[in-house]
Amino acid sequence: VTELPPFSHLQLTPLPKVVVGGHEVRGGRLRDHADRMWKESRAISPDLLEAASAALDAADSRIRPGTCLPASPRILKFVEEPWAPFDATARQAVARLRQDIESFRMENDLGHVVVVNIASTEHLPREPLPQQWHELDSLLDTAAWPALPSSSIYAIAAFEANASYINFTPSLGATPAAIQQLALSRRLPHAGYDGKSGETMLKAVLAPMFAARHLHVSSWVGHNILGNLDGWVLQDATHKEPKLRSKDHLVGEVLGYAPQSLVSIEFIESMGDWKTAWNHIHFEGFMSTRMAFQFTWQGCDSILAAPLVIDLARLAERAHRDGEYGPMPWLSFFFKSSPTPVPQDFASQWDALTAWSESKKVSRSTAGATPSTLDRHS
Amino acid sequence: VTELPPFSHLQLTPLPKVVVGGHEVRGGRLRDHADRMWKESRAISPDLLEAASAALDAADSRIRPGTCLPASPRILKFVEEPWAPFDATARQAVARLRQDIESFRMENDLGHVVVVNIASTEHLPREPLPQQWHELDSLLDTAAWPALPSSSIYAIAAFEANASYINFTPSLGATPAAIQQLALSRRLPHAGYDGKSGETMLKAVLAPMFAARHLHVSSWVGHNILGNLDGWVLQDATHKEPKLRSKDHLVGEVLGYAPQSLVSIEFIESMGDWKTAWNHIHFEGFMSTRMAFQFTWQGCDSILAAPLVIDLARLAERAHRDGEYGPMPWLSFFFKSSPTPVPQDFASQWDALTAWSESKKVSRSTAGATPSTLDRHS
Amino acid sequence: VTELPPFSHLQLTPLPKVVVGGHEVRGGRLRDHADRMWKESRAISPDLLEAASAALDAADSRIRPGTCLPASPRILKFVEEPWAPFDATARQAVARLRQDIESFRMENDLGHVVVVNIASTEHLPREPLPQQWHELDSLLDTAAWPALPSSSIYAIAAFEANASYINFTPSLGATPAAIQQLALSRRLPHAGYDGKSGETMLKAVLAPMFAARHLHVSSWVGHNILGNLDGWVLQDATHKEPKLRSKDHLVGEVLGYAPQSLVSIEFIESMGDWKTAWNHIHFEGFMSTRMAFQFTWQGCDSILAAPLVIDLARLAERAHRDGEYGPMPWLSFFFKSSPTPVPQDFASQWDALTAWSESKKVSRSTAGATPSTLDRHS
Amino acid sequence: VTELPPFSHLQLTPLPKVVVGGHEVRGGRLRDHADRMWKESRAISPDLLEAASAALDAADSRIRPGTCLPASPRILKFVEEPWAPFDATARQAVARLRQDIESFRMENDLGHVVVVNIASTEHLPREPLPQQWHELDSLLDTAAWPALPSSSIYAIAAFEANASYINFTPSLGATPAAIQQLALSRRLPHAGYDGKSGETMLKAVLAPMFAARHLHVSSWVGHNILGNLDGWVLQDATHKEPKLRSKDHLVGEVLGYAPQSLVSIEFIESMGDWKTAWNHIHFEGFMSTRMAFQFTWQGCDSILAAPLVIDLARLAERAHRDGEYGPMPWLSFFFKSSPTPVPQDFASQWDALTAWSESKKVSRSTAGATPSTLDRHS
Repeated sequence: VTELPPFSHLQLTPLPKVVVGGHEVRGGRLRDHADRMWKESRAISPDLLEAASAALDAADSRIRPGTCLPASPRILKFVEEPWAPFDATARQAVARLRQDIESFRMENDLGHVVVVNIASTEHLPREPLPQQWHELDSLLDTAAWPALPSSSIYAIAAFEANASYINFTPSLGATPAAIQQLALSRRLPHAGYDGKSGETMLKAVLAPMFAARHLHVSSWVGHNILGNLDGWVLQDATHKEPKLRSKDHLVGEVLGYAPQSLVSIEFIESMGDWKTAWNHIHFEGFMSTRMAFQFTWQGCDSILAAPLVIDLARLAERAHRDGEYGPMPWLSFFFKSSPTPVPQDFASQWDALTAWSESKKVSRSTAGATPSTLDRHS
Repeated sequence: VTELPPFSHLQLTPLPKVVVGGHEVRGGRLRDHADRMWKESRAISPDLLEAASAALDAADSRIRPGTCLPASPRILKFVEEPWAPFDATARQAVARLRQDIESFRMENDLGHVVVVNIASTEHLPREPLPQQWHELDSLLDTAAWPALPSSSIYAIAAFEANASYINFTPSLGATPAAIQQLALSRRLPHAGYDGKSGETMLKAVLAPMFAARHLHVSSWVGHNILGNLDGWVLQDATHKEPKLRSKDHLVGEVLGYAPQSLVSIEFIESMGDWKTAWNHIHFEGFMSTRMAFQFTWQGCDSILAAPLVIDLARLAERAHRDGEYGPMPWLSFFFKSSPTPVPQDFASQWDALTAWSESKKVSRSTAGATPSTLDRHS
Repeated sequence: VTELPPFSHLQLTPLPKVVVGGHEVRGGRLRDHADRMWKESRAISPDLLEAASAALDAADSRIRPGTCLPASPRILKFVEEPWAPFDATARQAVARLRQDIESFRMENDLGHVVVVNIASTEHLPREPLPQQWHELDSLLDTAAWPALPSSSIYAIAAFEANASYINFTPSLGATPAAIQQLALSRRLPHAGYDGKSGETMLKAVLAPMFAARHLHVSSWVGHNILGNLDGWVLQDATHKEPKLRSKDHLVGEVLGYAPQSLVSIEFIESMGDWKTAWNHIHFEGFMSTRMAFQFTWQGCDSILAAPLVIDLARLAERAHRDGEYGPMPWLSFFFKSSPTPVPQDFASQWDALTAWSESKKVSRSTAGATPSTLDRHS
Repeated sequence: VTELPPFSHLQLTPLPKVVVGGHEVRGGRLRDHADRMWKESRAISPDLLEAASAALDAADSRIRPGTCLPASPRILKFVEEPWAPFDATARQAVARLRQDIESFRMENDLGHVVVVNIASTEHLPREPLPQQWHELDSLLDTAAWPALPSSSIYAIAAFEANASYINFTPSLGATPAAIQQLALSRRLPHAGYDGKSGETMLKAVLAPMFAARHLHVSSWVGHNILGNLDGWVLQDATHKEPKLRSKDHLVGEVLGYAPQSLVSIEFIESMGDWKTAWNHIHFEGFMSTRMAFQFTWQGCDSILAAPLVIDLARLAERAHRDGEYGPMPWLSFFFKSSPTPVPQDFASQWDALTAWSESKKVSRSTAGATPSTLDRHS
């Protein structure tokens, strides 16, 4: 997206200057994970994988052990000891992750780090978090405190390390009020949550049509099948619930009323990375005549998501370069939900994104191209 | 559409004050045609048909013989003599139709008449028309002049009778420069062409998504089947060609490049009024990975089109009431093409329509509710 | 089906001689239930409903209160007291239902009664039943014994009343060994279970193609949506489970190996009686190339099932007329499962049905057309 | 298919003993054509292509110039001079091709040669052929005789070289009565025509379901898109017509009545070898309620066809080994049409194939494994 004409004047960080590192709880080399994209899904060509293998190995060398706090039984199945240390408290985890991010910035001589959450969907936290950062902060020392999910630990570490934070998943991340407070006090930008790259993007595109044509939607059914690791984790109902909730609210928000809706997402191993979504939309036209619209989206999940992650990192760095901070609602184009209320139709979200870009024509930073980076954890 | 909130302040003609008349070359009663919507397509409930039968009979009494000039062999199969007189020249046809429209206005004590072309798609005219109205005007007396299609004869008659003109079909209508000149000189509004209610509407909705997400569309295939009279007429290749052309240009205009595209439309009798469209969109994501999006639209053709015809008649009357004239590009929301260049994405078209409506909040006509009417010919 | 040429020599009971009665726990008139087929689903024409209203009222007068023993909370929501008496024991329920069936036969002067279970899917019984009839029989007096589902109570009552029994649902019915023993001792035919009229029929048709062409099926996903009362009952997981199990076994049996399979069925109110099934079949061809076959079946559930119920009643009566008894595996064509092992491919099942019919050409009963009847309960 | 259990006793030629040669009018190496399957369609893995490259080169060395007689303009676009000589008469072409086949057999020390037509669909011959072989034979010397298509020239050459002949295309091949006479007189087997591997196979599978369930099919629409060379040739209407005819007759033959049917096939370049077929089947159930069944088949054309070509060569050789000759109707399982009338439902065709195989258990040839071969021309 950021290579399109409306963004050409933004002086975004050139791709060769982006350095990739991250946190990980699993073992395995990046090049082996990438090879699976070819072998299981025929989605990245072997030529390209070979050409990228040195870069993947270099990125591997910049990956540090993630935190397992407070990982669910399903996630713990992946974890390799002693690779991934079991932090005793959230405080301890935050300190370790923050140190990694700061070292990553210094060792690679980077202008700014953007932490992007692309880990599997977490289960919902079991209890509400305090509203104020100082209250939450004081709980970080509580041993085995299960209420704070990993994604929020990473978000806190990111902010404490002066990094921007992007939540590409339906996990909690920087969404809690207390953590947003931290971001504001540190004057750091953040955005989320849950990248919108397939079925939900189509809902944002199609629902406004039914609204503008006054065609009453009676029901909207979406059935998704996929076979990648994300799908595997979603087999666990506690992990699936936030995902379904994230996929389901948009249609009602666009239409202004809630048709019966149903979203399901199922792990079908043979699909590999090919997330296939069937949607059946039942609607009423003039004189209550019922009609139907069905679609099948056959998209390659990672191939659709990866370029958006790059877009988001470049855009967040650009915002930070200009001194913007707090939530970035003009990035709603990329997400299923936003921490602040935003219009949910695709065209408005595109308008918000390009309007932000347009605003930079006037106020263009003169700081030059400060190198930006992405931090990956999973 | 005109019943939605963004149009509530427009003081559009209330539906009970709309009087329906028209021109027709076929025989048969409206109530029998309407009954077929139930019997062949289960699309209008018998209860409703019964409730509407007196109104349909009243409209029947206001229908006058249309012109068969220069009807194609396929259209002539419908024609009932002596019902539809064979006009000797275009001039003669224009004079007769104009007289009918003026009588219709007087007899029903109407403020304004809007002529809407909802006839079957015509074949393409065999030779180009002159650019200037006075040149075209002088040709109207040429006996059996085949270059001027019926739709344009009706458009001329409409303008000469001080009526607005809406072209809901891909036929020529008021599109020729000479006829647009006539409309300008008469200070009358017109719009068209070809109502957008199914597959093409979806193209206007979906193509912008591929553009904004930088997903390169490799091919876009659309296959339509339908079983109503419109479909029957389209079995003739000379009638089908303008329809296919009308359905095909939009995607390239939105994307800014022309993917391979194919549109077909076929008469399948059992479908009745249920126009079913399968579309297959082949596109490339990151690293040239090919993906596919398929949809099936199962819409009832007349049920989708009818309310748009009412919307257009009300909006044209409102524009005329305010003294607007010439092409109305802010109505592109309803059409596959426009006589003047307009953005082809659905969201921009909606914005143009609502912006026009918003502009009336300031300049609201104080003239009160002048009754408006529709004129139908087929 | 029974009106097709291969069955024309069978001298099946003519339709006008079939008398319909039944048992029911809900209130409401048949004509009102039938009207809903028109109003909610546009599936039976009002003309037809009006023509049938006297016959529906007559059938209503032959419907007796069903048993609520041991009805689930979801079923009890339907029940109208005092219409449906709460039988104290299974014995008491069996005696009452048996008496109704016998009275029905006598009052209508019928040659034979066929009881067909077309009630909603039951939840699974909580404990295994004894294997021998005399053991099961002795338990019928146990008050509030929850192990014996309603469908089996009706099956026992049918056999005790010398009626044949057809199970058109995935409920237990006559499947338990002890009840089959009763049928054998009474020399009565029975068949089941779960009528096959949509998605599962297609599995029986399509799976043999993949097998014969040596195309390895990797996964078979089926997603069903429907909005009728059957769908409403299936919202309860205990009712849904037997349905899913019934829909899922066939593919593996035909293929000889078990691909990953997933069947889901969801209540979507706007669908009414239109059961819509999307299936995605992922398979491997030569050199392990993965391909996909998707289908959408848009069938009207009751309209597909009703004629099969009539077929089954006529065929069961014919078998009984010839002295056949026990399970009728040649009726597997109509069912998702069978009490005895049968081939599950559609063509073999059709061959079995027509071979049975063919066998009657030799051994044709000379008894003439004894009137047969259907007994409905729900 | 021939690797399935029902054929394990046939002692078919082991695959390593099959030698592949052929005739070709295009230039280019087989390995380059195969590479395109990877590059354009991701349908054969690069690993496999590399492993097969020596075998492909060896086959290349056994490919001789085909005949351009009487090639259409579209085919002539492929032809490389001086590679493909322009034979002056059909006689001259037959003699040359026959000589090639005989040399191929001798040089490779083969027991039998099977010629398989896998060339692009030809246009229809412009005039009828004589019924008797001696009449046709006497016309072969007529210079530039356009009535005899290339496929029939190859068929004659095959029979004159004592080879079996398989027609995997809708071209004429050995179908003319005169050429069948030649096959009989030479005691050689032949079969065809037009391999059935996608949409038409599904018609053979699905149509019997509608027949057996007494569901009246109102219309059957099939729309095919593909991007390979076969599709490119079909852009020419004279080439497309026999293909459409071949795809269209089956449904009516199975049902016993002719629903409105429509088959279209279009060249969409981005599809590569992925032949994608959408079918819409409109049918009536009980009380004339209309329902719909839609499917999308996403199959890789060559990957589906190639193994059937191997199956057919092995089965033809086996039949020839046992002295069978003339048309082989038990191979109808593989074809869209047959020279002699055969049942068109998939299950009957499978039964015919396996019954033939079963018959060999009794009359098994004791001749041992005589090597068999395939001859390819295009």
